[in-house]
Amino acid sequence: MILVPAKEFRSRAAKIFAAAGASSSEALIVADSLVEASLAGVDSHGVVRIPEYVGRMLGIPGYGPMTKLKPKAKIKIIKDASAITVVDGNWGFGQVVARKAMDLAIKKAKRYNVGIVTGRNCDHIGRLAEYPLMAAAQNMIGAVFCKTIPVMSPVGAKGRIIGNNPISFAIPAGKERPIVTDIAMSVVAGGKVTMASEKGERIPEGWLLDAAGNPATDPKAWLERGSLVPVGGHKGYAMSVVTEVLGGVLSGAGTLLDYSGNNAFLAMAINVRAFMPLSKFKEGVDKFISDLRAAPKATGAKEILIPGEPEIREKERRLKSGVPVPEKTLNEIRDIAKRLNVQIKI
Amino acid sequence: MILVPAKEFRSRAAKIFAAAGASSSEALIVADSLVEASLAGVDSHGVVRIPEYVGRMLGIPGYGPMTKLKPKAKIKIIKDASAITVVDGNWGFGQVVARKAMDLAIKKAKRYNVGIVTGRNCDHIGRLAEYPLMAAAQNMIGAVFCKTIPVMSPVGAKGRIIGNNPISFAIPAGKERPIVTDIAMSVVAGGKVTMASEKGERIPEGWLLDAAGNPATDPKAWLERGSLVPVGGHKGYAMSVVTEVLGGVLSGAGTLLDYSGNNAFLAMAINVRAFMPLSKFKEGVDKFISDLRAAPKATGAKEILIPGEPEIREKERRLKSGVPVPEKTLNEIRDIAKRLNVQIKI
Repeated sequence: MILVPAKEFRSRAAKIFAAAGASSSEALIVADSLVEASLAGVDSHGVVRIPEYVGRMLGIPGYGPMTKLKPKAKIKIIKDASAITVVDGNWGFGQVVARKAMDLAIKKAKRYNVGIVTGRNCDHIGRLAEYPLMAAAQNMIGAVFCKTIPVMSPVGAKGRIIGNNPISFAIPAGKERPIVTDIAMSVVAGGKVTMASEKGERIPEGWLLDAAGNPATDPKAWLERGSLVPVGGHKGYAMSVVTEVLGGVLSGAGTLLDYSGNNAFLAMAINVRAFMPLSKFKEGVDKFISDLRAAPKATGAKEILIPGEPEIREKERRLKSGVPVPEKTLNEIRDIAKRLNVQIKI
Repeated sequence: MILVPAKEFRSRAAKIFAAAGASSSEALIVADSLVEASLAGVDSHGVVRIPEYVGRMLGIPGYGPMTKLKPKAKIKIIKDASAITVVDGNWGFGQVVARKAMDLAIKKAKRYNVGIVTGRNCDHIGRLAEYPLMAAAQNMIGAVFCKTIPVMSPVGAKGRIIGNNPISFAIPAGKERPIVTDIAMSVVAGGKVTMASEKGERIPEGWLLDAAGNPATDPKAWLERGSLVPVGGHKGYAMSVVTEVLGGVLSGAGTLLDYSGNNAFLAMAINVRAFMPLSKFKEGVDKFISDLRAAPKATGAKEILIPGEPEIREKERRLKSGVPVPEKTLNEIRDIAKRLNVQIKI
């Protein structure tokens, strides 16, 4: 791991994306999204994705799934009816399309007190929590339900059949930081299995099935068409099915392998001011947070964390220390920069 | 277990509720809700609740938590602003308040394409899926997020701190039955632990903590202030926190122990017609369902079930066989009927 200051990484990543064909505003949005995810400790959705994204932009396989990604894509509004909108990302950057969608959902919620925007035909939207947090910054509750590429087995099935379809919420607080949840419906993310594989470690039973559908403790099975296991069995499976419909059907993207894109999603904003005075809502959330923190601790537990708190703390740490990046990723980025004739020092 | 025909049970339960002070329409709604839950195999939210509800109506402790329940309560509209409404159930039956709330959400969704209604000050709302299914019957996607009484420990805590706050969705299909999910955020429901206790069985580690916060395999620990464990650790905890805000704060009920009621909730309806022609949506859901069913089976699995399917099949079975009721529950119901001078044969 090499520690790279976030600010430098941001400008260098933006240079690379621009050199690969992104508009300057797209390049900044995507670079910022990946560096923010890395700062929050969500490494699987951070700067390690730079080679994958550029690989797709330039048609260089080997860095990740070759779903469609077209820079400078124009987002189309497919439907706009009272509190809802459907957008087609025209295979643009997921971050650009999802930011636009959440912007529209917030506008709808300002007018109707709830706004729902579905989005299809876009690439990977990155760290999900980014978009609900846009709503929380406007004193709204934000949520995103995201269909991913198939990586998980439904209960009773084997193979990569359904996405592990994450759901994220952000809730504004008063004196406290916003509550932020961002959870995939598999026991663990594929990135965690890959990491174990790179370290040569075994994984606990219950995370992974091999291609034949048997429980696997060797993480290499993941690279050989293994599949993730739903969290809580039928519970994670059920929620992944819901999100497949909200993100896949309601956006017009399609479900399971019918959709050739990377992500499709539903973004929602709820205007808390419509329900009660904002100060009352915020006091309620603050009280809830402090009551949770004050609950009796389990044996060995130092504190009770509020969802979102670990990421906020990690960001504070990494803003000082720099973002840890695997040597492998840095080398890939250097190769790509060379190929694009971008003069950067990383 | 004694098998009782559903139809007879419904009319007898309604008689009991009416004798205990419910209006005839309330009595029918609540009796129907409990019998339907029993038919679907959701026994924990079915006819076993009759003694508990009547116990609260008449102030007889010993059958369940003594939260507030006032028959013939008048539901108040606290806020009504574009696509959202806040209702106060005035401590009426949860089923009556939640049905009213989902009715209002559907009306809002007809007008704005999304409707959100929060509800507070009501009793137990029963089987959650009942309300999303009302939306699905109107060709909408329905959802309910429900705050329950504290029964679960946040990650790092011990004791009954937060609800296991279930979430339910229903999604209309075309030729297929609707997709229905109804999942609590604990590994298992308290009812399952109670059942193991009554049978004298042990439970697997990971379901329950005892009052001291240690993992318990003796289900009796549940009756001695034990607490349920969140499904998937921080994942179930995170979603229970979200629902505590949606159901507790956004309804004005309050969170954790601040709320003296049984349930508080957020009901949502999404008008799928706004996103695309209804036939296209239904074809998409049908295709999704048949693709899931056609996925390769895991070793030993006979079929891949769609969320909601087990309950539909159980209902078909129990409509023929009758509803299985524990002798203990029947005796409690007989005692209550006697106390109320209701002449029924069960």
